[in-house]
Amino acid sequence: MTRKLLAEVNISEGKDRQLIDAVKDALLREGELSLIDLNSDADHNRTVFTYTGIPGEVLAGTKRLVRKAIELIDMTAHHGSHPRMGAVDVVPFVPVDGVTVQEACGIARDFGAWLGSMGVPVFYYEECATRPERKSLVHIRKGEYEALPEKMAQEEWMPDEGPRAFVAKSGATVTGVRFPLVAFNVNLGSSNLAVGKQIVKAVRGATGGYKNVRAIALPVGEKGNVQISMNLVNYRETPIHRVFETIKSEAAGHGVSVTGCELVGPVPLAALEGVIKHYLRVHSFSMNQVY
Amino acid sequence: MTRKLLAEVNISEGKDRQLIDAVKDALLREGELSLIDLNSDADHNRTVFTYTGIPGEVLAGTKRLVRKAIELIDMTAHHGSHPRMGAVDVVPFVPVDGVTVQEACGIARDFGAWLGSMGVPVFYYEECATRPERKSLVHIRKGEYEALPEKMAQEEWMPDEGPRAFVAKSGATVTGVRFPLVAFNVNLGSSNLAVGKQIVKAVRGATGGYKNVRAIALPVGEKGNVQISMNLVNYRETPIHRVFETIKSEAAGHGVSVTGCELVGPVPLAALEGVIKHYLRVHSFSMNQVY
Repeated sequence: MTRKLLAEVNISEGKDRQLIDAVKDALLREGELSLIDLNSDADHNRTVFTYTGIPGEVLAGTKRLVRKAIELIDMTAHHGSHPRMGAVDVVPFVPVDGVTVQEACGIARDFGAWLGSMGVPVFYYEECATRPERKSLVHIRKGEYEALPEKMAQEEWMPDEGPRAFVAKSGATVTGVRFPLVAFNVNLGSSNLAVGKQIVKAVRGATGGYKNVRAIALPVGEKGNVQISMNLVNYRETPIHRVFETIKSEAAGHGVSVTGCELVGPVPLAALEGVIKHYLRVHSFSMNQVY
Repeated sequence: MTRKLLAEVNISEGKDRQLIDAVKDALLREGELSLIDLNSDADHNRTVFTYTGIPGEVLAGTKRLVRKAIELIDMTAHHGSHPRMGAVDVVPFVPVDGVTVQEACGIARDFGAWLGSMGVPVFYYEECATRPERKSLVHIRKGEYEALPEKMAQEEWMPDEGPRAFVAKSGATVTGVRFPLVAFNVNLGSSNLAVGKQIVKAVRGATGGYKNVRAIALPVGEKGNVQISMNLVNYRETPIHRVFETIKSEAAGHGVSVTGCELVGPVPLAALEGVIKHYLRVHSFSMNQVY
C-alpha cells in the first residue's frame, strides 16, 4: 500500500454554494488528492471536506483550502446549530496507511505553525495536545466563538500558535491528529427504548462495555424503532464484528432482533479487514491482497 | 473510485532472476502502475506479473513488459511443468473499476494487434474470442508449444493477429478479457476425503451446485485434513459468503467442522463488499465509502 494520510477540514459555511465551490477548487487545483467526502449542512452552516493523499500533498492541499476559507468566511456574521469557534473550525489529520501518529503530528504542527503565521490563533488537540486539558475538542471549544475574547485573555487559553489575542474575522482553529473513527449503527426490530438503553449500557466503555465504543440509543424512522448509534474510536483494539456480535447477543437476550446495520461515511479499509477475517475465518488474509 | 484495469502477464521464465528483474524493470520504468503480485515458480518455469492502473497506462506498461520478454526468452530452450505455448504465454486483462468488458476488449485488441506487428502470432480468448472454440485457454493451448508448427498449418488455427506461420523463438500468445477470479479454500477438520468429495459435489456448478464455482477436494498438511479448493469465476453472481455458508452447512451435515479458510492471491475489493454487507447486514454500504 502507498503511504496515506487523511484530513477532514471543517469550515463554518454550509449554505453559500459559490463559497464552498471556491474552497473546494482551491483544494483540488493541484496535487494528487482523493476527495472522499464533501458534506455541507445548511442547518449546521458547516461543510466537512474529507480527502486523502501522501502526507506532503495533504499538507499542501490543506493550506490551499484553508487560505481560501479564511479569506472568504467572516465569523462575525456566522450562525449555525453546530458548535464552532472558527472560520476553519477543526482540522484533524488521520493516519491511514504507512504513516505513524508521530509523523501525522509533524504534519499537524507544520500546518498549525503556518496557520498561526497567517494571523489565526491555533490550538493543538488529541494526539498533538500540548496540555492534558487540550486533549478534548469539546473542552477547547466550550463557549464557542462567542466566548473566545474572554477565554483568550486568560493564560490558560493562550493559543499554541499565532496571535495571542482574539481575531474577530477568523476566530480560532483546532488542529491535531486522531485515530480513524468508524460510525456504525445497529437497527433493532423493536421500538422499546428501554431495551436500547440496556444494550448501550452493555457495549459502551463508560458503563463497563468496550473501551473504544461511544454509543447512544435513539428512535428512528416512522415506526420509531430503536437504533444503537455508535462511534468506534479505535477499530484495532475494538473491532466492528465484536461489537456487532455483542449487540446481537444482548438484543437476543431481550427477545429483540437486529434488522440491519449502517456504516456511515468514510470507513478505513483496515477496519474491514477484521470483519472479513472473522466471518470468513481467513486468518492469513491481508488487505494488501486487495486490488 | 478511479477507473482501473488489471493485467496478469504470464511469461515462460521462472528461474532466471536477472531476466525476470529486467522484465519487471521494463514494466515499472514509467507510468502509474501498481504491481500487486509477482509470482515466479521455478518448477513451472513461469512468472506471473499482476498489476493495475488506468487502462491506457496498463496497455503501455504491458507493451514495455512484453517487448522485453520476447527479446530475452527463447522458447526453443524452455522446459517447465506448467502448460505453455509462448514466451509470453497468456495476457488476460481484467476489468476492475469503472471499466466495461467492451472497453477492456478494446485494450486487449490494441495489445494483440501491436504484438502481431512485432512478429508474434496472437490468439484472442474468453470475452474477446473470435470463434466459439477459442473461448477456452485450455483448448487453444492443447498440445502446447510443441504442437504449434502442426496446428498453425491448419486453417482452424490461423492466428487472430501476426504471422500465420510458427515462430520458434516466441511461440504464440493468448490474450483477451476475463472476469476477476477469487481463489477461495475452505479447510475441514477431518481427513475424510469422501466427505470432501461430497461437499465438492454440492457446491460446484458441474454437479448441480453454484454455476460459477470450480472446486476440488484434496488432502493438505501433515494430518492430511481435507481442503475444498475453489475458483469463484464470477463473485457477482455467486458471492463468497454464499459458497462459504453452504460449505459450512454441508460439512455440519457430515458432522465435520470448518477450521479455517484462505483467500489466495489478489482479491478484488468489490468481491469483499458482499462479505461485509452480508455479515454486518449493512445493505446500503458501498466500497466507495472505503479509504
